Amino acid sequence: MRGGAYGWQAADAGLAAMCWTNTLANVPPWGATAPRVGNNPLIVSFPHANGHVVLDMAMSQFSVGALTTYAARGEPLPVAGGFDRDGEPSRDARAILESQRLLPIGFWKGSGLSLMLDLLAAGLSGGLATRDINPDPERETALSQTFIAFAHVEPIAGAVLAHFHGNTHDARHPGERVLTTRARSLRDGVEVDEAVWRDVLNS
Amino acid sequence: MRGGAYGWQAADAGLAAMCWTNTLANVPPWGATAPRVGNNPLIVSFPHANGHVVLDMAMSQFSVGALTTYAARGEPLPVAGGFDRDGEPSRDARAILESQRLLPIGFWKGSGLSLMLDLLAAGLSGGLATRDINPDPERETALSQTFIAFAHVEPIAGAVLAHFHGNTHDARHPGERVLTTRARSLRDGVEVDEAVWRDVLNS
Repeated sequence: MRGGAYGWQAADAGLAAMCWTNTLANVPPWGATAPRVGNNPLIVSFPHANGHVVLDMAMSQFSVGALTTYAARGEPLPVAGGFDRDGEPSRDARAILESQRLLPIGFWKGSGLSLMLDLLAAGLSGGLATRDINPDPERETALSQTFIAFAHVEPIAGAVLAHFHGNTHDARHPGERVLTTRARSLRDGVEVDEAVWRDVLNS
Repeated sequence: MRGGAYGWQAADAGLAAMCWTNTLANVPPWGATAPRVGNNPLIVSFPHANGHVVLDMAMSQFSVGALTTYAARGEPLPVAGGFDRDGEPSRDARAILESQRLLPIGFWKGSGLSLMLDLLAAGLSGGLATRDINPDPERETALSQTFIAFAHVEPIAGAVLAHFHGNTHDARHPGERVLTTRARSLRDGVEVDEAVWRDVLNS
């Protein structure tokens, strides 16, 4: 299950939440070339009657899932998402998956935040840290995860979102695209990738 | 006092911590051109006998303080820190301070995280949200702040940092530069900007 699901679940119960997991080492710290931190997705959610506000973000500029999707479609990334084999910044998802040099969000900042989330997740639970997690994605198990829920939050999301969007609604807030996609899927059915669908039928 | 100070204080007491504040609106959400989210510094700290691990990061790629320092020195930023008046990505701190178009870390990701930190800080405290805070930096008061301390964390920082640095120590971990600077300042005295020092003497 995607980490974001826990954020939606908390918000449905009227709670704000902050949750994260560590992962196998799949992002090089800023300055390094080998993957030594996880992309450690962080979820922050806040309840709102008109549709909750839910952030679900990996510490890499693009999650491995997003890179795989761009690579499969042969589309360039909207911004550089890592480095190619020659160490050049790249918008080619395939080249980045090959080099394993994913870019942390905000360069040194995402690199640092990823380390902190790993320290907290493993340090609070007594579970495995990224350094202990099997680097084979097929054997990435026994991760450490943190779930914090906050009760009694003021119902301020409507006012804060109104200010965030201003008169222009030129920016998207966290969770907005999920809500749009969910509404469309409920109305028109779920969009499925043809190649993936054939694989499912043939498996 | 810098927010980071609270992280060091918690770590000195053997606690891990996560603290943040909202600020006046000084960063445009990703996709927008006018500042409508704060740069909402986030502090995450973890105790370590050989020097605590302390992250202190604004949601903009560069804090206003860092931009001011680069502008004063006339040095280019190491990476794009925002947009100039013409909407072009820029490494010129002065042009960014002028346009007020600071870049959020990780583009849409920092924009979203900034919004979430504002919702949580104001929603948990019942205090002001960024939308309510005076946009004049001289009158930026009554911010909302969150301080979370975690007791009983496992002493894993040494092992995790060893993995983070590998054999190369080509990456810097959060707090490392502070510790180096502190050691140098204690040994050689505190480095002071000549122009600022003259201003102090003349004021």
